[in-house]
Amino acid sequence: MKFRIEKDTMGEVPVPADKYWGAQTERSRNNFKIGPPSSMPSAIIEGFAYLKKAAAYTNCDLGVLSIDKRDAIAEACDEILAGELKDQFPLVIWQTGSGTQSNMNVNEVIANRAQVLKGRTVGEGEPFIKANDDVNKSQSSNDTFPTAMHIAAYKVVVENTIPSIEKLRDTLQGKSTEFASVVKIGRTHLMDATPLTLGQEISGYVAQLNHGLKALRNTLEHLSEIALGGTAVGTGLNTPAGYDIKVAEYIAQFTGHPFVTAPNKFEALAAHDAIVETHGALKQLAVSLHKIAHDIRMLASGPRSGIGELLIPENEPGSSIMPGKVNPTQCEALTMVCAQVMGNDVAITIGGMQGHYELNVFKPMMAANFLQSAQLLGDACQSFDEHCAQGITPNYKRIKELVDNSLMLVTALNTKIGYYKSAEIAQTAHKNGTTLKEEAVRLGYVTPEDFDDWVKPEDMV
Amino acid sequence: MKFRIEKDTMGEVPVPADKYWGAQTERSRNNFKIGPPSSMPSAIIEGFAYLKKAAAYTNCDLGVLSIDKRDAIAEACDEILAGELKDQFPLVIWQTGSGTQSNMNVNEVIANRAQVLKGRTVGEGEPFIKANDDVNKSQSSNDTFPTAMHIAAYKVVVENTIPSIEKLRDTLQGKSTEFASVVKIGRTHLMDATPLTLGQEISGYVAQLNHGLKALRNTLEHLSEIALGGTAVGTGLNTPAGYDIKVAEYIAQFTGHPFVTAPNKFEALAAHDAIVETHGALKQLAVSLHKIAHDIRMLASGPRSGIGELLIPENEPGSSIMPGKVNPTQCEALTMVCAQVMGNDVAITIGGMQGHYELNVFKPMMAANFLQSAQLLGDACQSFDEHCAQGITPNYKRIKELVDNSLMLVTALNTKIGYYKSAEIAQTAHKNGTTLKEEAVRLGYVTPEDFDDWVKPEDMV
Amino acid sequence: MKFRIEKDTMGEVPVPADKYWGAQTERSRNNFKIGPPSSMPSAIIEGFAYLKKAAAYTNCDLGVLSIDKRDAIAEACDEILAGELKDQFPLVIWQTGSGTQSNMNVNEVIANRAQVLKGRTVGEGEPFIKANDDVNKSQSSNDTFPTAMHIAAYKVVVENTIPSIEKLRDTLQGKSTEFASVVKIGRTHLMDATPLTLGQEISGYVAQLNHGLKALRNTLEHLSEIALGGTAVGTGLNTPAGYDIKVAEYIAQFTGHPFVTAPNKFEALAAHDAIVETHGALKQLAVSLHKIAHDIRMLASGPRSGIGELLIPENEPGSSIMPGKVNPTQCEALTMVCAQVMGNDVAITIGGMQGHYELNVFKPMMAANFLQSAQLLGDACQSFDEHCAQGITPNYKRIKELVDNSLMLVTALNTKIGYYKSAEIAQTAHKNGTTLKEEAVRLGYVTPEDFDDWVKPEDMV
Amino acid sequence: MKFRIEKDTMGEVPVPADKYWGAQTERSRNNFKIGPPSSMPSAIIEGFAYLKKAAAYTNCDLGVLSIDKRDAIAEACDEILAGELKDQFPLVIWQTGSGTQSNMNVNEVIANRAQVLKGRTVGEGEPFIKANDDVNKSQSSNDTFPTAMHIAAYKVVVENTIPSIEKLRDTLQGKSTEFASVVKIGRTHLMDATPLTLGQEISGYVAQLNHGLKALRNTLEHLSEIALGGTAVGTGLNTPAGYDIKVAEYIAQFTGHPFVTAPNKFEALAAHDAIVETHGALKQLAVSLHKIAHDIRMLASGPRSGIGELLIPENEPGSSIMPGKVNPTQCEALTMVCAQVMGNDVAITIGGMQGHYELNVFKPMMAANFLQSAQLLGDACQSFDEHCAQGITPNYKRIKELVDNSLMLVTALNTKIGYYKSAEIAQTAHKNGTTLKEEAVRLGYVTPEDFDDWVKPEDMV
Repeated sequence: MKFRIEKDTMGEVPVPADKYWGAQTERSRNNFKIGPPSSMPSAIIEGFAYLKKAAAYTNCDLGVLSIDKRDAIAEACDEILAGELKDQFPLVIWQTGSGTQSNMNVNEVIANRAQVLKGRTVGEGEPFIKANDDVNKSQSSNDTFPTAMHIAAYKVVVENTIPSIEKLRDTLQGKSTEFASVVKIGRTHLMDATPLTLGQEISGYVAQLNHGLKALRNTLEHLSEIALGGTAVGTGLNTPAGYDIKVAEYIAQFTGHPFVTAPNKFEALAAHDAIVETHGALKQLAVSLHKIAHDIRMLASGPRSGIGELLIPENEPGSSIMPGKVNPTQCEALTMVCAQVMGNDVAITIGGMQGHYELNVFKPMMAANFLQSAQLLGDACQSFDEHCAQGITPNYKRIKELVDNSLMLVTALNTKIGYYKSAEIAQTAHKNGTTLKEEAVRLGYVTPEDFDDWVKPEDMV
Repeated sequence: MKFRIEKDTMGEVPVPADKYWGAQTERSRNNFKIGPPSSMPSAIIEGFAYLKKAAAYTNCDLGVLSIDKRDAIAEACDEILAGELKDQFPLVIWQTGSGTQSNMNVNEVIANRAQVLKGRTVGEGEPFIKANDDVNKSQSSNDTFPTAMHIAAYKVVVENTIPSIEKLRDTLQGKSTEFASVVKIGRTHLMDATPLTLGQEISGYVAQLNHGLKALRNTLEHLSEIALGGTAVGTGLNTPAGYDIKVAEYIAQFTGHPFVTAPNKFEALAAHDAIVETHGALKQLAVSLHKIAHDIRMLASGPRSGIGELLIPENEPGSSIMPGKVNPTQCEALTMVCAQVMGNDVAITIGGMQGHYELNVFKPMMAANFLQSAQLLGDACQSFDEHCAQGITPNYKRIKELVDNSLMLVTALNTKIGYYKSAEIAQTAHKNGTTLKEEAVRLGYVTPEDFDDWVKPEDMV
Repeated sequence: MKFRIEKDTMGEVPVPADKYWGAQTERSRNNFKIGPPSSMPSAIIEGFAYLKKAAAYTNCDLGVLSIDKRDAIAEACDEILAGELKDQFPLVIWQTGSGTQSNMNVNEVIANRAQVLKGRTVGEGEPFIKANDDVNKSQSSNDTFPTAMHIAAYKVVVENTIPSIEKLRDTLQGKSTEFASVVKIGRTHLMDATPLTLGQEISGYVAQLNHGLKALRNTLEHLSEIALGGTAVGTGLNTPAGYDIKVAEYIAQFTGHPFVTAPNKFEALAAHDAIVETHGALKQLAVSLHKIAHDIRMLASGPRSGIGELLIPENEPGSSIMPGKVNPTQCEALTMVCAQVMGNDVAITIGGMQGHYELNVFKPMMAANFLQSAQLLGDACQSFDEHCAQGITPNYKRIKELVDNSLMLVTALNTKIGYYKSAEIAQTAHKNGTTLKEEAVRLGYVTPEDFDDWVKPEDMV
Repeated sequence: MKFRIEKDTMGEVPVPADKYWGAQTERSRNNFKIGPPSSMPSAIIEGFAYLKKAAAYTNCDLGVLSIDKRDAIAEACDEILAGELKDQFPLVIWQTGSGTQSNMNVNEVIANRAQVLKGRTVGEGEPFIKANDDVNKSQSSNDTFPTAMHIAAYKVVVENTIPSIEKLRDTLQGKSTEFASVVKIGRTHLMDATPLTLGQEISGYVAQLNHGLKALRNTLEHLSEIALGGTAVGTGLNTPAGYDIKVAEYIAQFTGHPFVTAPNKFEALAAHDAIVETHGALKQLAVSLHKIAHDIRMLASGPRSGIGELLIPENEPGSSIMPGKVNPTQCEALTMVCAQVMGNDVAITIGGMQGHYELNVFKPMMAANFLQSAQLLGDACQSFDEHCAQGITPNYKRIKELVDNSLMLVTALNTKIGYYKSAEIAQTAHKNGTTLKEEAVRLGYVTPEDFDDWVKPEDMV
């Protein structure tokens, strides 16, 4: 491999000649061989591209950067956003906790790429654009990395997680309406209980998702606050007047999302409570989705020795040894994702609680966990919706059989003959393997006519 | 001990003669000897008292309970709320996951207590009020227990957690204003950084708490929804028309809090996402408070070998062996509480994800963890406020000494001489143990006059 | 209330006249009103009583405490161990993170109680025994509190948790043997699979508990190491030569458990990895027990609309509204306990990771969570064993019906006619609602005789 | 892109013509677009390669597979192990929870690759080797996936995690010996305490790692048990006699690790407590490593406004805005890894607790989290060792200055003049900003000579 020499304030470093990155990226690559390379999420790199471009525009507007430099920086940023420089970001999550090295990676790539865009050669002559003094102008890693985090986090939540969950919610809402009059047995404590309709049962899932979506949206305002303009410790040292507000406006314009400058930059650097907050809502949705997916697989269990009230799509052979087996695989993928999100929530909590003084240094870890959760939830809901929820149909025969046979219909008699006599009827029928009606009449508590009149599953829902 | 015979649908049970509880409570007491007795939180019992009274009023209004019975039930409930029957609730958290047995405990105690209030003798003759048919009328454990959970949870959050945190926030806000011009060294990565004011540093804490309080309040609407009226599976079987709305109104009236009937009762029984949601906000506050308390103890560390920028109240001798030692004990209590809340969040998550079909059966565990978190956070913030935060004062001498000595003031030179030369100055001063000014001048990068003009900590904040 | 004046190095404090505690306890009581009073676990107080007595004996043996003082201290300790001074320990978990104040509480109570045992009056004259100089001699909170933690933790694990789990394991082992030839349908992905025996299924639970017990025992060696002798920072300052080894021997003798002095006292004060380690094993057991209890309640679900393969004891009425309902309440209590233990594990993890320098200051929180987990697991297993596991019986009729009807018996044909044709048979039978044999013959893949010969559930287990 | 037609029991599927995988892999690729593609860890694929080869050898030995087929399968497996087929495994973690689809992916690739190795064309004619009937012979996904998990998990722990931690432990042990006589101030509650040596302080870290390594090794026996031979539900249906023991022997031989057949296959399929158990030990090590890394960065904080007792290597520029700043970046990477492991532990706990009946269907999620934790811990310890721990040196000047100045040396006087007078000396010196000696003499409690004789830091360690 060929190398060129790059340098930073600590000295010279040989860097692969075909890469745009510079000395600091290369140092990090060598010093942090932890886990697979290039693990820093690409959404973070994109977040950086948005903010570097916005900073260049703002610096130019405020008179501290030339139009030439602004345009060169912006062009390189646009290339990153277009996915053209994907192999230029080799760093890992597990680097410095401020993400400084990824900030410098972006700075270096933009500076050297701009050199080429200007028709010059990387590493030769005075650079047209300098990584620290130009690309990073009016910035610090300490305010750029959290800004990139918020941009990336906000985007994935709004562009993937929320619409995917809404789509699943809509499907379930449709099923709830469609099955509004399918009377089925209820189950509490996993045991037979009084009836409800399948539509009602599914309406509970819809309500869960609606509450979860609302909770998630409630967090977006905090997440839309960006740290940029705080620079090193939150004071905004080395930024021109008006920079923080204007740069947020550019970011809002470039991303199409309503980002604003954080009213308190000290909080925005030293704590990542917005990440904790939004991820808390993702975790709540994981709790809800786990309940829903697990219910559906239990209701669809069988085909002959399970509950068997629902039929779900048969998407693939289920077993490499048991021929003809079909499994609730989408439920499994979704519940695994939910477990992952719950684990990620703890990692984020532990990172979030440990800001020290003016800076939280668990940034890349928090970002990576957040982005994984938001993407997985979105993707898994879309997959679950398409390959499972949309295809749910009731097993009408089985549902009717179970409800007709149920002992808990006796509850309808409480208000007629009291709890104690009702209990006696149910217990006797259970012991004898008979029907409620048989025992109700035999015990002399109810006439056959009254029984038929009082105990109607369809009136109990 | 003397016993009387009580019975339920399963048969007779001897019960301590001096207690109001009945057969089902006694069965639970014998069947669930798990952990210390009476661990079911008293706030849950009070929640039940509110709802039983509200149910009696509603049942009476809707014509299914006599005024006599209503008043007797209400009187017994008022006694519970007044704390007069504290020794009548012996059950534990670790019982049936629906809390049925605590619902029956309350039903039995109210029924038997009403017997006495009516001048009769417990266990003799036909009871004036029956536990199942009267006290529990139009109810199920499945809707009462979650209602009691929400009442208890809402009350502690609104009556303790929020005001305590607000009080601490106000104290910190006052400190932030008071110390608005105390310039101190900033620290990022635990390392010396550019300066900020102590007021700015504390303003970050205030912003964290404000965001956390907002997040917490965002969850209250979900928490104000109560399940009552859903009865066994959410359908409202055996309730008179209009019951759910009216009973919520009575609960709102009796508690003084804006409770409403849950729009979807299926969700309200089968999931406890509202508990998950609000506790998620408590966890976020724990994350924030941990950051704040840990910062303060680091800033107050010393007295001679630590950071030593803050002085905090000396409340008690700190060591049983080291004479004269004083420790940041309030910070420690608060950070321990925060760790507890983070653990409780996982327990609640695991409980919340496991509603099965029409009922979540992790109710008492979820309730207990929630109530502990909310109370501990409230109590700890109040204690921390009173015994620590209010007494915080700057160690002016130490603060000035550190800021004057700092190498990171060099950052002010970036915009004058560039990042590279600035770095060289700082590195040389670090190596030689000299001042920035000495090296800046010696290296020929800045004149003494310019240095004094450009590097002013008070202009860098 | 009457008060007497006590003092410490910070000055005078009025203390309730009828209590033995002194100034430092009273300060803590006033400064830490966090959660319910007296929440410091009594097992910790007992741990202190053991170690204070052991320290007195050791100090006496090594010539730094008189026999008179030793005996007075020992007598007071014995009273604590006999439960006679229960109302003398009012402090909470949420105090200083070293537990100093509970150490002083014990020191003060012992000193003042010894005064009375000597026939003197508390608070009058020079005390015969001084809290700091005598009771706490050769000790620091920093080594006593972790010692009390280990004594309490070891005792509950060995005296409650392990024997309770062993008892449940023995019951399940007995069931496994008893039902060794009950052939039943297997289920994977919650879907019908090839058969196994009920004994085999339960043998998996036994194997889980055996592995968990082994994992738990593996941790005991670390837990048996005690910090005493390290004093303030681990160096053993102010202890006589040989103290640490001898005091551990006395503790081993008094408790009957094999405690030894920690080879490295710095680790023993600054980290509580032994607590993390043993609780990790408790968490593993919670994972196993959750699986077992949840399986059992699913297998026992019904009575008519569930799986219904197992019958479990009917211990109490299950519903306040549905007459005759019986629920798997012991499974619910146990799974709630498991969730709690999983949450506690996170709290302990967060506490454990944060030793700073020479001392971890999350001690009381870690201890309280540990002790709760160990007791709850032990108690819940005993309850579950007695009220559920011992009473498990197969529902033979249901089990046979399901196995006879199963489509997954087709797997036995794989080795005869290949996976693809077998799958075709199963799929066709599923579609047509017929039996495997009918379709196998109709498709011409197997003769009726071969089918009967090849597909025998009892040969598939 | 060109396609060929593959089929499975559900019908035909077009598959990219240049890939070896078949219908089931392609279905999974289409049905589970969740997260980035190919996320199933390569270590799992390698685990499969080992076991498929071992199964082929065992099947051949036991007479159910020809030598020709065995050798073709083995050759393809060896290619996978040599990393030559990396682009043939496109599936994600978030598929069916049994990992069936990855098992089929491996089966299909091996079968089609063997076709080519035999000089035939994929998709043409009767395949020489069939995915289900040959490659998967005597196997099920249900026993192969957990076997692959254990192989992968065991290997990474023994080949990366343990040696990396041991190397760090050795480095720290060396430092502990090297600095055995460097007396420094101790700190408890983050506050000044009695002195110890730097060697002693570091010895605590060594003890933590030794305990953690021992705990980790304790778990390996469980992890060495493999499920293979259990097939679908643990009964070993469709395996020849002696298969399970022999196949484990081959796996042990091929991997060089002491794998044995699980004594209880039901546990091995339905629960993954071995994964929970070993990851519990990884989590304990994360707790220890977090303590160590955080201590080191606090001790190295500064250079002028922190603790400053340690010097650590300066590996890279620390700030994009603050020139000359150097940060404890290796500590940050390691503590982020620790937080990740703690979060992963919760994900694994939640997966592990949910085996249902005969199968746990959180396998891929559990495997992925485990493997990430083990690799990250190993890699991060190696990085931390090389780039930080090895370069730790004491800042002698600062250490001496702090210890000389400390007030807690007063503790040495306890045994001479009692705790109370000692406290008075310390408090007075603190108040007056004087030395202990000055105040001790001024208060008349100690003569100058005695003070010098009694208060020697080097005698206090």
